[in-house]
Amino acid sequence: MQRKPTMNDVAHRAGVALKTVSRYVNGDPTIGADYADRIREAIAELGYRRNMAAARIRPGQSAKMIGLIISDLSNPYFATLARAIELGAAAAGYMLTIASSEEDGARHDLLVDRLLEQQVDAIIDVPPRAPGRAWRDIPPPLPPLVFVDRPSDWAAADTVLADNAGGARSATRALLHAGAGTVAFVGDSVEIFTMGERLTGYRQALVEADRPVDDDLVRDTVHTVDDAMRVVLDLLAGGRAQAVFAANNRAALGALRAFRLAETFLPMIGFDEFEAAALINPPISVVSQDIQAMGRAAADLAVARLNGSDIPCTTTVLPTSLILRGSERLLPAF
Amino acid sequence: MQRKPTMNDVAHRAGVALKTVSRYVNGDPTIGADYADRIREAIAELGYRRNMAAARIRPGQSAKMIGLIISDLSNPYFATLARAIELGAAAAGYMLTIASSEEDGARHDLLVDRLLEQQVDAIIDVPPRAPGRAWRDIPPPLPPLVFVDRPSDWAAADTVLADNAGGARSATRALLHAGAGTVAFVGDSVEIFTMGERLTGYRQALVEADRPVDDDLVRDTVHTVDDAMRVVLDLLAGGRAQAVFAANNRAALGALRAFRLAETFLPMIGFDEFEAAALINPPISVVSQDIQAMGRAAADLAVARLNGSDIPCTTTVLPTSLILRGSERLLPAF
Repeated sequence: MQRKPTMNDVAHRAGVALKTVSRYVNGDPTIGADYADRIREAIAELGYRRNMAAARIRPGQSAKMIGLIISDLSNPYFATLARAIELGAAAAGYMLTIASSEEDGARHDLLVDRLLEQQVDAIIDVPPRAPGRAWRDIPPPLPPLVFVDRPSDWAAADTVLADNAGGARSATRALLHAGAGTVAFVGDSVEIFTMGERLTGYRQALVEADRPVDDDLVRDTVHTVDDAMRVVLDLLAGGRAQAVFAANNRAALGALRAFRLAETFLPMIGFDEFEAAALINPPISVVSQDIQAMGRAAADLAVARLNGSDIPCTTTVLPTSLILRGSERLLPAF
Repeated sequence: MQRKPTMNDVAHRAGVALKTVSRYVNGDPTIGADYADRIREAIAELGYRRNMAAARIRPGQSAKMIGLIISDLSNPYFATLARAIELGAAAAGYMLTIASSEEDGARHDLLVDRLLEQQVDAIIDVPPRAPGRAWRDIPPPLPPLVFVDRPSDWAAADTVLADNAGGARSATRALLHAGAGTVAFVGDSVEIFTMGERLTGYRQALVEADRPVDDDLVRDTVHTVDDAMRVVLDLLAGGRAQAVFAANNRAALGALRAFRLAETFLPMIGFDEFEAAALINPPISVVSQDIQAMGRAAADLAVARLNGSDIPCTTTVLPTSLILRGSERLLPAF
């Protein structure tokens, strides 16, 4: 047989009705074992393969594909988040098309267009630092949308966030409590929602402790580990920072590089767990997000919409936890 | 207009031929600027959207989608590899559907079936530890296939590997050269191609140095960081290992945890760079793979096949580099 085998061919070979084959390939568990065996054999013999791409363009059918846009797949935070979303999506039978926006609005919008052209069933999105087109300016129909890590101005979507302000506040408070007279903020652009929130939490902790907010100690231009290293070397040279709140994992790694280069260690707490945090001397204290829960919640919300849920859109804010390992304290020797 | 706008509607609104719109949406650069502007405006006004899903089932057209199967997206090695492949694919206009096999043959085969059902244009695959179905047992047609990180028994595919044996040999040699009388191998199952190669390189270095291969020092059951920590604690208790070759990043992190717990540091070299390697005291020496080059080569090979290349299938082996930072030497104090 040269042409591709069809579901009809399978039904013929198995000696069952076409409808029974259709029930089988759609996973109907009520099919008798004898029928299921005959259909399975016929599929194997004929080399029949479902065409999920064709399913996309049939009304009421789905290719079981969710699009995911993150900032950068090689950033461990986003890779872990993507993996958690993959696990949640897979549990409901969905695969993920994953793409990195690189925090660029134009690139993000291009990826959205590509995912819409691919007719994905839903989109899970981390809005980029540099905003592009507004969602309301995209011609409908839009598939279900879930924002994760950062919100969007588009109200018709579920959103899953971490308590960024609360985490930053508890970290800054812990540094002050351990004896730091001043705390520097080292992070990425406050145009990123999570960074703005973390700066807010940092300021709250200072105000609550009756400390002035010293703008010279707020450094929010750190996009890479190297940026962070340079900024922290500059803070060390300035001599006014007595402790560092590193507002993401890039900032924490860069600060540690600077401390090593300068052979001067300041008390420090990072935001986001990183693999080797406990292996460094002193072990590094961090604000930890429950990335597994965040990814799972985003996937579950998308799947619920795909299953027809029409409850009002929700914003879920997950708590963070402060893991104190020692780096928040002044050490006698380093 | 309630129905979805078509390419015909765009042509009508822009006052150009249907063929011109088709050339425009397919990126033909020879279209006059005036025509291009009119078509762009018509597309925006009408909200026209290409249907790439439909493109998949039209002969000679493509959805511009490549499937990628890796072991685990949350492992930084594979996340970095996936990102490098994404960059290469994006440069040619392809997106990636990414899925994690978890080293499980049955899960891997299910993912292959799903990608084939999705009619992806090509598949880039990291074969799992536990082999599943042979590729030759999958009914044709298969899209172009590229294996990366590990080879397969399927000859009709391009393959991109690192020089695992050479890297392991140079690491073991460096540990011996620095004065270790014995070197333990700590890694994952040798059923994984890369691990088998790394064990081969380790043995070669011992034989070349006229040292016996002590099977008690070869530990190849390390799937997780915790496994590695337990195995290295056991090696420390045994007292026969004078140095450790940690054959992947999980093994290296686990060994470092064991050293910290036991307050005993053995000279060590890891395989694969990890983020904080240079921040630990002593800084950790590693065998580094050029993951960017590997991912780019895999993407380029897939795209070349999609562009019609019919040269014989190739196997590319990329060199590794040994980065010595100090952890390969015995230290007076830790």
